[in-house]
Amino acid sequence: MARAELEPTRIMVGVNQSSIMGYPLPSISSRGAFIWTLQKIVRSNISGFKLLFLHVQVPDEDGFNDVDSVYASPADFRDIKDRDKIRGLHLLEYFVGRCHEIGVPCEAWIKQGDPREVICHEVMRVRPDLLVLGSRGLGPFQRVFVGTVSEFCAKHAECPVVTIKRKLEETPEDPVDD
Amino acid sequence: MARAELEPTRIMVGVNQSSIMGYPLPSISSRGAFIWTLQKIVRSNISGFKLLFLHVQVPDEDGFNDVDSVYASPADFRDIKDRDKIRGLHLLEYFVGRCHEIGVPCEAWIKQGDPREVICHEVMRVRPDLLVLGSRGLGPFQRVFVGTVSEFCAKHAECPVVTIKRKLEETPEDPVDD
Repeated sequence: MARAELEPTRIMVGVNQSSIMGYPLPSISSRGAFIWTLQKIVRSNISGFKLLFLHVQVPDEDGFNDVDSVYASPADFRDIKDRDKIRGLHLLEYFVGRCHEIGVPCEAWIKQGDPREVICHEVMRVRPDLLVLGSRGLGPFQRVFVGTVSEFCAKHAECPVVTIKRKLEETPEDPVDD
Repeated sequence: MARAELEPTRIMVGVNQSSIMGYPLPSISSRGAFIWTLQKIVRSNISGFKLLFLHVQVPDEDGFNDVDSVYASPADFRDIKDRDKIRGLHLLEYFVGRCHEIGVPCEAWIKQGDPREVICHEVMRVRPDLLVLGSRGLGPFQRVFVGTVSEFCAKHAECPVVTIKRKLEETPEDPVDD
């Protein structure tokens, strides 16, 4: 084990924004997965781990998120992209800020695309020791309609994956929300 | 996090014997899951974790494992059960012995039944923080015939589950062996 101690255990944590409250707040399940990782795995051994936060932004099909805005030039569309990026950075700030407070080394980055594919692709590229994903803990009926990123990644990601189900007492009125 | 530090993280590890070499040797995937847990999760923080080794013995349908033996009295059948138990204990000795060498607190016990059901039932009873299972990493075609304990438990166990796939270079000639 002596050799393994040289390199920290690299844990990738997939995070997204709250569907109820939007950016910069993390979803309930992302926050749960993060807290679980700190409390149950990292514990006091802050130099033994490195957390890698991946936030995947799902691009709007038409790019029109803000129906009140007026889009008059190509620059407007570039602005949208920049604004999305800034929102994503604000989300990552939550996780990176807490890691800095505790002293756990971390990295964070944003990618765009289908979260299932992007997470699996980033696992191949970055080769973490473990991927931690939050899940809403939806039943089979609800899953048919909303799909689950964690289920897909648990099956296809090329590293060990642990899924942290949202606590029952944290479930919002509509369990599809997060 | 201060409060969480009081209680160690309890990790249940499902272990079984080697299908090629039999008792008391652990299967390749059990040993892999165990070593992964030590190297990647426990690391040097030995007081922060407690490992719980569960070995599920699958009872023979007819109780006749040793075709050369003569069974003449009810006591003979009791002897078979005792011998199975002793074999199981020898397997657990491997894991408990290594934990003692390193100084990681642990417990180990044997149950009989269908490993999928028993593991999920023991998770409900013992409430570990994490369940670690080794897997042979079989393809979908092979899985149809041999079933996979890890896949079932990842879906049904009431705690976070991580599956550690056997390393490619450790795959025996027949990948169904372990």
